[in-house]
Amino acid sequence: MTRGFASDNSATIHPEVLESIVRANSGHAFAYGHDPYTQRVESMVADAFGVPDASVFFVFNGTGANVLSMRALCRPWEAAICSEYAHLHTDEVGAPEAIAGTKLLAVTAPDGKMDLDAIARLAARTVDEHFVTPRVVSVTQSTELGTLYSLDELRAIIDTAHEHGLLVHVDGARLANAAAALGVGLGDVTAGVGVDVVSFGGTKNGIMLGEAVVVFDPALAEGMLQLRKQTLQLASKMRFIAAQFEALLTDDLWLRGALHANAMATRLADALVSTPGVAITRPVQVNAVFAVISAAARMELQREFDFYAWDEQAGEVRWMCSWDTTEDDVDRFAAAIRAATARG
Amino acid sequence: MTRGFASDNSATIHPEVLESIVRANSGHAFAYGHDPYTQRVESMVADAFGVPDASVFFVFNGTGANVLSMRALCRPWEAAICSEYAHLHTDEVGAPEAIAGTKLLAVTAPDGKMDLDAIARLAARTVDEHFVTPRVVSVTQSTELGTLYSLDELRAIIDTAHEHGLLVHVDGARLANAAAALGVGLGDVTAGVGVDVVSFGGTKNGIMLGEAVVVFDPALAEGMLQLRKQTLQLASKMRFIAAQFEALLTDDLWLRGALHANAMATRLADALVSTPGVAITRPVQVNAVFAVISAAARMELQREFDFYAWDEQAGEVRWMCSWDTTEDDVDRFAAAIRAATARG
Amino acid sequence: MTRGFASDNSATIHPEVLESIVRANSGHAFAYGHDPYTQRVESMVADAFGVPDASVFFVFNGTGANVLSMRALCRPWEAAICSEYAHLHTDEVGAPEAIAGTKLLAVTAPDGKMDLDAIARLAARTVDEHFVTPRVVSVTQSTELGTLYSLDELRAIIDTAHEHGLLVHVDGARLANAAAALGVGLGDVTAGVGVDVVSFGGTKNGIMLGEAVVVFDPALAEGMLQLRKQTLQLASKMRFIAAQFEALLTDDLWLRGALHANAMATRLADALVSTPGVAITRPVQVNAVFAVISAAARMELQREFDFYAWDEQAGEVRWMCSWDTTEDDVDRFAAAIRAATARG
Amino acid sequence: MTRGFASDNSATIHPEVLESIVRANSGHAFAYGHDPYTQRVESMVADAFGVPDASVFFVFNGTGANVLSMRALCRPWEAAICSEYAHLHTDEVGAPEAIAGTKLLAVTAPDGKMDLDAIARLAARTVDEHFVTPRVVSVTQSTELGTLYSLDELRAIIDTAHEHGLLVHVDGARLANAAAALGVGLGDVTAGVGVDVVSFGGTKNGIMLGEAVVVFDPALAEGMLQLRKQTLQLASKMRFIAAQFEALLTDDLWLRGALHANAMATRLADALVSTPGVAITRPVQVNAVFAVISAAARMELQREFDFYAWDEQAGEVRWMCSWDTTEDDVDRFAAAIRAATARG
Repeated sequence: MTRGFASDNSATIHPEVLESIVRANSGHAFAYGHDPYTQRVESMVADAFGVPDASVFFVFNGTGANVLSMRALCRPWEAAICSEYAHLHTDEVGAPEAIAGTKLLAVTAPDGKMDLDAIARLAARTVDEHFVTPRVVSVTQSTELGTLYSLDELRAIIDTAHEHGLLVHVDGARLANAAAALGVGLGDVTAGVGVDVVSFGGTKNGIMLGEAVVVFDPALAEGMLQLRKQTLQLASKMRFIAAQFEALLTDDLWLRGALHANAMATRLADALVSTPGVAITRPVQVNAVFAVISAAARMELQREFDFYAWDEQAGEVRWMCSWDTTEDDVDRFAAAIRAATARG
Repeated sequence: MTRGFASDNSATIHPEVLESIVRANSGHAFAYGHDPYTQRVESMVADAFGVPDASVFFVFNGTGANVLSMRALCRPWEAAICSEYAHLHTDEVGAPEAIAGTKLLAVTAPDGKMDLDAIARLAARTVDEHFVTPRVVSVTQSTELGTLYSLDELRAIIDTAHEHGLLVHVDGARLANAAAALGVGLGDVTAGVGVDVVSFGGTKNGIMLGEAVVVFDPALAEGMLQLRKQTLQLASKMRFIAAQFEALLTDDLWLRGALHANAMATRLADALVSTPGVAITRPVQVNAVFAVISAAARMELQREFDFYAWDEQAGEVRWMCSWDTTEDDVDRFAAAIRAATARG
Repeated sequence: MTRGFASDNSATIHPEVLESIVRANSGHAFAYGHDPYTQRVESMVADAFGVPDASVFFVFNGTGANVLSMRALCRPWEAAICSEYAHLHTDEVGAPEAIAGTKLLAVTAPDGKMDLDAIARLAARTVDEHFVTPRVVSVTQSTELGTLYSLDELRAIIDTAHEHGLLVHVDGARLANAAAALGVGLGDVTAGVGVDVVSFGGTKNGIMLGEAVVVFDPALAEGMLQLRKQTLQLASKMRFIAAQFEALLTDDLWLRGALHANAMATRLADALVSTPGVAITRPVQVNAVFAVISAAARMELQREFDFYAWDEQAGEVRWMCSWDTTEDDVDRFAAAIRAATARG
Repeated sequence: MTRGFASDNSATIHPEVLESIVRANSGHAFAYGHDPYTQRVESMVADAFGVPDASVFFVFNGTGANVLSMRALCRPWEAAICSEYAHLHTDEVGAPEAIAGTKLLAVTAPDGKMDLDAIARLAARTVDEHFVTPRVVSVTQSTELGTLYSLDELRAIIDTAHEHGLLVHVDGARLANAAAALGVGLGDVTAGVGVDVVSFGGTKNGIMLGEAVVVFDPALAEGMLQLRKQTLQLASKMRFIAAQFEALLTDDLWLRGALHANAMATRLADALVSTPGVAITRPVQVNAVFAVISAAARMELQREFDFYAWDEQAGEVRWMCSWDTTEDDVDRFAAAIRAATARG
């Protein structure tokens, strides 16, 4: 049985998540989330973010969570500011535009973190009828490049946004990894610094399938039940998504998984420090290692281990660790990398 | 533990489905369906429909399957003909229009089955630039009113559609119930009579979450990978949806579940024949019983059993049976109905 | 030179409209409506409707005005109730759905006038996340079938809408004909009875090109400048649309044109009363005559006069009069009809 | 009477255009472009581009022409590459995204002309289901910064696009100015170098209102009649848009107007050469002059002359000349600029 370094999406379901699904599989329940169990887990999520009256909407996947957020926050002439590397911008095959009708204003983002001045310039533009009106800043935390906004960096972005009347959305597909790395809670890194809406991911952190859109100010959630349904994100047997989040929030499973995945990435990076032929290209802050290796080494390694070329022209690859990556997986992989890069 | 008659969506996950998920939960797999296991199950689905080279796309839910189908089949100025009771038309909160941009042309449908002449009239309209061009006939099989198109009725609709250059989509959220009731295979009731695309439902027949869009002519599936992603229906850990379909297609689980649910509805209807105060309003052909009872009886019953008023003004209620409804559930419910309707 | 009975869209531009364009064609003006002249004409329109602080937005055409209205009034999960014959529903090639994303709920409309009970039933539906939420009733006045809502009929619809929290839009492509026929002002038949938004047509009443969306409560007009631009309805050289409306509202040109067109339809209908082979099928209340004649007669007449078959199967034709239709045109046409229908 | 330098949209209608409208204003004509006169002018346009069987679609405005082009050329998962300064990207308030559903991939464009390497990189990307598939390169000619692609520069972009299976659209709001400056015909600068579709502008070159979408390969125009209507761009009294294009193409009015406007910009630039306090910032190739002046000078000048600050932070202004700008206008303006910049 193989565990690779392609994606935290390639990992298995955590046994505690499966057990929770099995426990929930008893008796009939009203569909579409109108069952008391789902509602109780929604409250658990709100509490985990430190905002008991936050509105929580379980959805199917991260793209669904992001696009639903855009539909909820932006009117047709309003736009979202995001990083040039944002999943929203580069990996959702135009769904924000085609499905939400939302124009994205991408700003430069060294190592995946948005340039604050660029945000400020867009937010400060005069509103007219020719240019879209910025309405949301969408921040990916942790970023697509395996880096992290510090709480201060987040606050600076959020304050800038709020000063200009913009809202802040967090694409938190890997929010758990970020909170774990920062040593803070899910609420500290979101509501606590002023975030308005979060796409809270579970799939990359050991659940089978499911995300939650968390809206801290219920006034922003008007029409969300209908929008979720219309955005094709309403599960009929909702309790089984809820069950996964119950597991994730029980005994800090989210944190255990994230801490472990982060630690495995650090272990991998540490094992490769000063390895000739391996240049680590981004700060290793959560569960990813980006590096430049030769094409020959990459292809040799890919015969045994799954991982992706991130930027083929630059020779940059991405190695992603998961909740289920073992120390042995890392050590064997690091050894293979050293061997392959030594050869070419 | 309670089992009600609200919806087949209220039911549990079949144990064989859960076991299949557990079996699939080993090792890493490429995400987004690019793993050999998912691809093998896609082939199983195609084979189950008797069209080995059909293109199969797993998605999250029925509305997603339907809207994706509309997006795949209709260009912006093209429309879909459907029943006035179609889920597409009445229960997807405008997603076909808002997300697919597809106008629906709803035709009258006594007992849920579309009027053939009405289809023919729309299909035969002269094409101009003012009226939408009909492109698809979407047939729900079995229907939203618990009825069934016979193979001959289906053929008549499909032949009419094809004669005018229209395609035929089947909303098969309960296709299993239909095939079971007709005593034919999944392919016989779809590709075998000329259907072009099916939304094949699993959720209402014992799985946890998942549907499949089956496109019989691969030429119609161009761009479907991108459309599925953009329509927010691409699961990253796809193998766990595939696992559910593998279970559904193994040892005819789909058929066992559907036959049982259908039998339970027949048992319920039989138990109520000539019960004063209970008027069964639709042919009981699959797993639903529609009836008119007094409001007093309805409200008394709903204190103990979950079910929906279908048409409050007409006093019509819907009782839905599931794969996990037991004979005892039915008998206790029938007795309660008899008692409640005797009282008022 | 021929004048037919195909459409009031086939007519010429009134000379006073052309003169107004010529007068406006002097010196430079800020584009996009930000010139004082356009702003003055916007005020003239608001005043003509008796609501000086109404917001007025000039657009290009009727479909643009209607779709912009839907975009302004409906959120994605909200729907518009309209007549089964509404231009919005049958003649805008799905633009309300594809461009505004708005689902239309079409109700039966004998002689083109919506059934009040059907509106009431839809408006009274319980709001949930599965069915669209009705938000607007769109009333075509005068109707697509050449008929007219009386002020009392309008009030009944509007009161029903408002009681349920719905807004009322009027598709007023032929509002002038309606006001003229009712003997009231433009405001009396709209704001005066509670209408919220009007698509006020000019093109069918003697101007070259242009409509105006009139929003009586400015609070409903938030974002309209951006929406108009995004809905592709913002003219850069706006003053030349404004100039046409100035002409239309000067010396009651709108009323003169409409009264004349209406009178010509009455003259035509009167000339055909008790003509064998001609059955007038709708009340002749504005500028259209609908009749059933034989196919042979129709085809003979169409060799000389332009007009449309309205419903080929029923043998129903539509004869439309315009501001520039002359008495002689009508008399010659009536004579030709009598001759043709006498023959077949 | 004042003529400013704000925009070629601020100018008047050329008398020959008005005369053509007057000439067309006789007798009834079938609406929606189904009249022989409009069809004859469509042929004139096709001929003017040297492609007699090109399909020509008159529309209302430039944004309409561009968005219609995107809808015609791109399927939902396909994207358009354009300049960071493209009108499509910065001045259509998100209509390409919200109305066409098309994601734009903006590339850097020094002096308004797209970087060829950036186009090539995007065009060469591997197609997958996560990133949009580039389908069109949209080139603005002349550019939003008053510059010009040479025929060789155009050919390089078009060849790159075609090699990768992409189509080329030209936003030709000022195509006449470009052709005039290059000394070639409308066809030479479009179909002659391989362009597939043009938004051919008239409004900025002396007509009242109207653009034409010209599709050189009729196979690309399937469904365009319906798309034009659905995109809210179908004029009912079409002959009056046709009449304006007839004038524009008669006796080379398009060329006379463009040559004059271009000459006026050159005259203005020449008059300001080596004026202290005036730095011309872009090559003056068509009818615009971009310059940096002090804020004080700008504000003083704007009290008498209309023009826009292009980039307030950089102190850059735009002065635009029109078909009706006179030498005296330019000379008076240049003198005022010299006086104002001398003062501060």
